Amino acid sequence: EQWRSQIWLSLLSALSLRLVLPGGAEEGLEFPNFDGKDRVLDISERNYKKALKRYDLLCLFYHEPMPANKGLQKRFQMTELVLESLCSQVLENKDIAFGMVDSQKDAKVAKKLGLEEVGSLYVFKDDRVIEFDGELSADTLVEFLLDVLEDPVEIINNAMELRAFERMEEDIRLIGYFKGEDSYYKAFQEASERFQPYIKFFATFDKTVAKHLSLKMNGVNFYEPFMEEPAVLPGRPLSEMDIVEFVTQHRRATLRKLRAENMFETWEDDMDGIHIVAFAEEEDPDGYEFLEILKDVARDNTNNPELSIVWIDPDDFPLLTTYWEKTFKLDLFRPQIGVVNVTDADSVWLDMSDDEDLPTAEELEDWIEDVLSGRVNTEDDDEFADDHENDHFVPEDEEEGDQDPDEEDDE
Amino acid sequence: EQWRSQIWLSLLSALSLRLVLPGGAEEGLEFPNFDGKDRVLDISERNYKKALKRYDLLCLFYHEPMPANKGLQKRFQMTELVLESLCSQVLENKDIAFGMVDSQKDAKVAKKLGLEEVGSLYVFKDDRVIEFDGELSADTLVEFLLDVLEDPVEIINNAMELRAFERMEEDIRLIGYFKGEDSYYKAFQEASERFQPYIKFFATFDKTVAKHLSLKMNGVNFYEPFMEEPAVLPGRPLSEMDIVEFVTQHRRATLRKLRAENMFETWEDDMDGIHIVAFAEEEDPDGYEFLEILKDVARDNTNNPELSIVWIDPDDFPLLTTYWEKTFKLDLFRPQIGVVNVTDADSVWLDMSDDEDLPTAEELEDWIEDVLSGRVNTEDDDEFADDHENDHFVPEDEEEGDQDPDEEDDE
Repeated sequence: EQWRSQIWLSLLSALSLRLVLPGGAEEGLEFPNFDGKDRVLDISERNYKKALKRYDLLCLFYHEPMPANKGLQKRFQMTELVLESLCSQVLENKDIAFGMVDSQKDAKVAKKLGLEEVGSLYVFKDDRVIEFDGELSADTLVEFLLDVLEDPVEIINNAMELRAFERMEEDIRLIGYFKGEDSYYKAFQEASERFQPYIKFFATFDKTVAKHLSLKMNGVNFYEPFMEEPAVLPGRPLSEMDIVEFVTQHRRATLRKLRAENMFETWEDDMDGIHIVAFAEEEDPDGYEFLEILKDVARDNTNNPELSIVWIDPDDFPLLTTYWEKTFKLDLFRPQIGVVNVTDADSVWLDMSDDEDLPTAEELEDWIEDVLSGRVNTEDDDEFADDHENDHFVPEDEEEGDQDPDEEDDE
Repeated sequence: EQWRSQIWLSLLSALSLRLVLPGGAEEGLEFPNFDGKDRVLDISERNYKKALKRYDLLCLFYHEPMPANKGLQKRFQMTELVLESLCSQVLENKDIAFGMVDSQKDAKVAKKLGLEEVGSLYVFKDDRVIEFDGELSADTLVEFLLDVLEDPVEIINNAMELRAFERMEEDIRLIGYFKGEDSYYKAFQEASERFQPYIKFFATFDKTVAKHLSLKMNGVNFYEPFMEEPAVLPGRPLSEMDIVEFVTQHRRATLRKLRAENMFETWEDDMDGIHIVAFAEEEDPDGYEFLEILKDVARDNTNNPELSIVWIDPDDFPLLTTYWEKTFKLDLFRPQIGVVNVTDADSVWLDMSDDEDLPTAEELEDWIEDVLSGRVNTEDDDEFADDHENDHFVPEDEEEGDQDPDEEDDE
């Protein structure tokens, strides 16, 4: 117990070192302090049903049995402590409980609850299960849980709210037009619960809003990220399953942004073992420009099921930025695009070393075609890896590829 | 040493619990692992000059003497460890060093280096000092340091980059038009270094870009956050001091967004002990609508030096959201505006309980007027606090105030 409290202090100081020191006299920005109570549930066959009933949200961490290795043991206990911290401090008053399910000891319960991926966190809300497969940091997890607490469908009432809806180009969004809450809206709402909070559902009961979106009564539009025009779901009215099937089929976007809340899920959804990865800081003029080119390419190729580009904004992942720079041998102060082999993190990157000359959409499309056809791949340069570690090496038999936009004069 | 390693493991598992468990076979998203080397410098009169010369960035944590209290001691050591982690792991290869300066033991060095606020982190770059007064979390600090490493002036070369510039409405920005790098641009650049990375400086050498911004040769525009028109700095050409003085005088915006990177600095810059605080989630339709109303109010009142509204997007501070809800007795799933007394966190909030009816810009302005005149304040309701903790109490002598927009029919 003594040991635990010490670790606690340590952990919390990582969250909020400022508390240590007498700063100004101002109040209003206090980060949480641990109160010492142990609130994490040890879930078993005996208590899981009761726990499910008792809380609005029950978050279960499905974990490996306690490891024999001492270092891992400590880490393991920390997992519990982090969850505890979240539970007791930040989400106090929200009727959220946390529990641990041991994949060996509690195998039966896990099976009954449908827990599959060891290392994941499962959130139970009413009769649904939501898997969290994002960064297990306090920030990300709390934000995720607060999102889950919100209504799964957001109602758009007026022109200003419509503008807010139209600005969310990074998200997969659906919007439906219904008579009112007591209508085919119910099926839409049921469907929304299956995807909350990863896919955003909106509805309107307002004729003017519907007209602006060219929505017919009981119609539903699906917006792929970064696309200008929505897809209209076939058929009206739609059943819950119609909607669920359509979303499931279309959820891998041509251009998708990596987000902390589901970063591992996205990364695991690779295309034949590779990802086309684009790094671009949206806040940076260069990055913004490159991103606009990328969006053009995605719009031109939205019907190609072979293509899905993962866009990473380095600003969203400060702790990974230098790791990526080292692993991929890149300068991430500038935009980059390349192919990453997810089994060994081997990669090749498009040479964009001339600052003034980003590739055009056409050049980028040619390069992507070379990637999809296998002409550009992560293996060809491997035998030279030792000698040319920092070279952007182009094998001789691929000189016709557009790997180097600097050689072209397109102005 | 043994104890330290344990804490380390703990700390790092907070950063990345996922490492504990055998996830998929995918690579490419590994969070850093501690290598055990002690890299934090113990700064003294003997070594500070050498350290300043040796590194591109030297980050000094100016701290109280080691406390007698054991719990605080541990926290204190954690501070060092967090910095160490940053230093050794994430910012490896970036030529950044971290050091500790004891406010008692190293008082002389602190004076020579100009360190003033105990508990702050000071970053030395070339011959400049930059104070970090934000959230001391790994994410925020690393992002801050990476920003400091970038060039303080960003060059805008074309129409697309100009669009990126124009989108940054949340930031204080300056942009100047110059002949080239060897011109009055030099003075502009020198000035930019004084404000990096808090205030963004841009320049263009391109006639078309300058024309679009109505910039004359050697002219500089200043953009207050959320304002549509820039202020033109008086005089051309401008010296470094002209620019520094103008920025210093105008940097407290009428509407300013709270950011993790300088949240404590912003909070300490109160107006006579109070802040007008608005909570609004930009990603939420309601929040977006309220924010647009708020921007209108700010634009109408941009010349009132008495008015500065702090906008907090709860999405940016998940760990503080429930603390604020509890302290201020608010529901932060919805937009809110109120007055907070920074000495005791006492507050009053505008009643906006009718979901469909956000206040109009006029109603909001009336309420703000009541705040500035003292008619709405945090003290009047205090004697009733025990009986009416959750009431939005309006004292009798203030019934003419527009505290309750629900009573009005403005449609």
